[in-house]
Amino acid sequence: MSETKPDSISWLSRDVVSILDFSRSELEYLFDAATWMKRRLREGSVPRLLGGKVIALAFFEPSTRTRLSFETAAKRLGAETIGFTGEEAISVAKGENLADTIRMLDGYADAIVIRHRYEGAALYAAEVAEHPVINAGDGKQHHPTQAMLDLFTVKELFGAIDGLVYGVLGDLRYGRAASSFILALTLFKPRRVYLVSPPLLRARDEVLEKLREAGISYEETESLEEVLGELDVLYVTRIQRERFPDPSEYEKVKGSYRVTRRLLEERAKPELKVMHPLPRVDEISFDVDDTRYAAYFLQARNGVPVRMALLALIFGAWR
Amino acid sequence: MSETKPDSISWLSRDVVSILDFSRSELEYLFDAATWMKRRLREGSVPRLLGGKVIALAFFEPSTRTRLSFETAAKRLGAETIGFTGEEAISVAKGENLADTIRMLDGYADAIVIRHRYEGAALYAAEVAEHPVINAGDGKQHHPTQAMLDLFTVKELFGAIDGLVYGVLGDLRYGRAASSFILALTLFKPRRVYLVSPPLLRARDEVLEKLREAGISYEETESLEEVLGELDVLYVTRIQRERFPDPSEYEKVKGSYRVTRRLLEERAKPELKVMHPLPRVDEISFDVDDTRYAAYFLQARNGVPVRMALLALIFGAWR
Amino acid sequence: MSETKPDSISWLSRDVVSILDFSRSELEYLFDAATWMKRRLREGSVPRLLGGKVIALAFFEPSTRTRLSFETAAKRLGAETIGFTGEEAISVAKGENLADTIRMLDGYADAIVIRHRYEGAALYAAEVAEHPVINAGDGKQHHPTQAMLDLFTVKELFGAIDGLVYGVLGDLRYGRAASSFILALTLFKPRRVYLVSPPLLRARDEVLEKLREAGISYEETESLEEVLGELDVLYVTRIQRERFPDPSEYEKVKGSYRVTRRLLEERAKPELKVMHPLPRVDEISFDVDDTRYAAYFLQARNGVPVRMALLALIFGAWR
Repeated sequence: MSETKPDSISWLSRDVVSILDFSRSELEYLFDAATWMKRRLREGSVPRLLGGKVIALAFFEPSTRTRLSFETAAKRLGAETIGFTGEEAISVAKGENLADTIRMLDGYADAIVIRHRYEGAALYAAEVAEHPVINAGDGKQHHPTQAMLDLFTVKELFGAIDGLVYGVLGDLRYGRAASSFILALTLFKPRRVYLVSPPLLRARDEVLEKLREAGISYEETESLEEVLGELDVLYVTRIQRERFPDPSEYEKVKGSYRVTRRLLEERAKPELKVMHPLPRVDEISFDVDDTRYAAYFLQARNGVPVRMALLALIFGAWR
Repeated sequence: MSETKPDSISWLSRDVVSILDFSRSELEYLFDAATWMKRRLREGSVPRLLGGKVIALAFFEPSTRTRLSFETAAKRLGAETIGFTGEEAISVAKGENLADTIRMLDGYADAIVIRHRYEGAALYAAEVAEHPVINAGDGKQHHPTQAMLDLFTVKELFGAIDGLVYGVLGDLRYGRAASSFILALTLFKPRRVYLVSPPLLRARDEVLEKLREAGISYEETESLEEVLGELDVLYVTRIQRERFPDPSEYEKVKGSYRVTRRLLEERAKPELKVMHPLPRVDEISFDVDDTRYAAYFLQARNGVPVRMALLALIFGAWR
Repeated sequence: MSETKPDSISWLSRDVVSILDFSRSELEYLFDAATWMKRRLREGSVPRLLGGKVIALAFFEPSTRTRLSFETAAKRLGAETIGFTGEEAISVAKGENLADTIRMLDGYADAIVIRHRYEGAALYAAEVAEHPVINAGDGKQHHPTQAMLDLFTVKELFGAIDGLVYGVLGDLRYGRAASSFILALTLFKPRRVYLVSPPLLRARDEVLEKLREAGISYEETESLEEVLGELDVLYVTRIQRERFPDPSEYEKVKGSYRVTRRLLEERAKPELKVMHPLPRVDEISFDVDDTRYAAYFLQARNGVPVRMALLALIFGAWR
């Protein structure tokens, strides 16, 4: 992005497909807007910046958390939403090709938020639609708005994203939140990134290559215990049993990727923050919830102001 | 509730878990607000008292009637709603514990309406959430907003709740609307309460004890015919076949708990009003619908103004 | 409709059950309103003509396209919507009779949009409800709002509905969009109507009789190729495999009812417009999409302004 083009213009009518489509400067502009939104939410004084707009939520794959967060963001700003989700989406998909469904939504709404299990679905939708398309998660790698709220939360907690030591734990191969977070870090200057996973679920080569291209010091490891003491941020994601061809393999590893209060108290720096895109099952034990380490509920709540900021920027309603 | 604490303050930011959490005076204040809402609805002049608010509808168990009634109440007052229902809720619940789901909604919305099959789910949600939680039915006993609209309807029809003879008919053991209605009566002074059910579906001891504690004259009976002539209000609920271990037992009793026009014309006082939380299957025959006895459609419509009043009081938007 | 009764009055609080309930003059008034709505949509200056209204969307049968189009129309005009759809509707229907469900919605909302698989469901709902009922498709014949947007699209494309040669292709027996379109044509003066279908799926006698009563020249044929060259408008609908008792029968015919770019370039007049109620599966090949023949995406987008116009007229909010 050229220096002469202000960020408010570069955000206008923008598709949001991958976190890598954005510059550091654009993301910082988004975070400013999100901070503003968060203050307005707290004061109960959110202006209806998107009054009269209709936003389509096309959740071909169910995701209550992301969907409700977008819906709340839109409605807090005075926009209306339409859409479908989960089971219903199956009947949408029955027979009809994705392009026709997207064209329908494009004809009704002013922007489309899409969630889809297939890699590339959001990019394809963005090509078909005239209105902006926002990827709310597709395939195994991209969930850009999750990465935005994750980085915003780090910035809020530490004052900066640069210079910190990050651990990303769990399913780095199939988990789109983890991949997007790692990719997002390449736009900043982390001191070091530890990629902690069982061998079967290591990060994909294309993700590692982005780290190398960005000149970021990273290390892959199977052991959380060994690196935990160095971390400022531990980003935890779920490991799904179904990923293991042999269930006994899963049983062997699962304990070593579980974050407990005891483990944190024994090994972590006092200022460590534990993050998680949620929902969690048992990868973070509940006794962590009321420790100073737990940042995942704050992170979840940040989904609304960050998505409000995103929508407002795309519609040119905030500057 | 002390006399010096005005009801408008005691309603503010209140959780609504059980009808027994409320005093007679608080309920009467609610009914005043509901009467006001009803007049405004009729005149088409409802003010947007809840503009800018977002209310989460968390229906872990499906309930179209209660859900749409809350949704209408919120929207009539200018609030927005988000949420999930039925099938979708199953995937919400998959793996994630209730506390995390409630925390998510608590982070997005200004109040949470919850429906859940488990006893105590609403109370638990109220403990987890910072925002007010409203029980839209949980477990087998509590459905406080149903009881509120039931009592409001009685008051509208008879001018008072005290001094009347009530019959509560059907599944008094597992039906939460019936239990809540009986519990609600303990806050007033009914002349007498008949509990009419097959032996298997008698009211629970803890409900009977509340009647005794309140000093209310009540009688359990299996026979509607015997007591019908004395009643001012007959509150009918469904008897589900599945409650009977032996289907032939069900077949034997079901006829005697069916309310027909002929039965009413033969036995009931002219001023008797028949109520039902709906939906009904065949426990009230359709030929009752256009008689003066039928109060259940009025009762159903009252769900909206009563829930509008409830929401407005909780948000401190009406006094 | 008498000449002295202005159309704005005849639309007020009107039920919309069949396209045949409307006069040519009433439809033309609707098209004027739809043209106005379309301009306002384009300018982004839609007034909140239905602010404070609540519209119930009762989709007993799933239909994402029609449902979202109504929902968008309502919300663009400032109305709120409540409702249910598909899977959820099954549990609504469980046990409860349609009249009780309609009475519930009638008690909550200011108008009811209904979709139902059974013939006559909308008419029945209109009899039960005090508020206006709009048929969003029931049974095999009636989908009046689809016919309205279809005719509006023809008028927009050709400047008139009269004097054109129409072909209606596909399942004319069970497809409610096709039947409604044919019935709608009887209110105007088409030059000729070709009914193109396999023998098993010919239009019903009652539909043909309406064409005869209106004095419209029509012809039934099995061959699209033979008549294609004469057509101004080709209205395509889907042929479902399930309609054929013998699958090999289906395989034999399906190719001859498929509209391809090649077929159009070889046989069609340059000004031919191809329409389709959507969703399509493969009855129009994708290579037609970017030809001048394709009118189905325009047609789909017209669903919103036409339904906005309809709602505004029924509520007396536009004249």
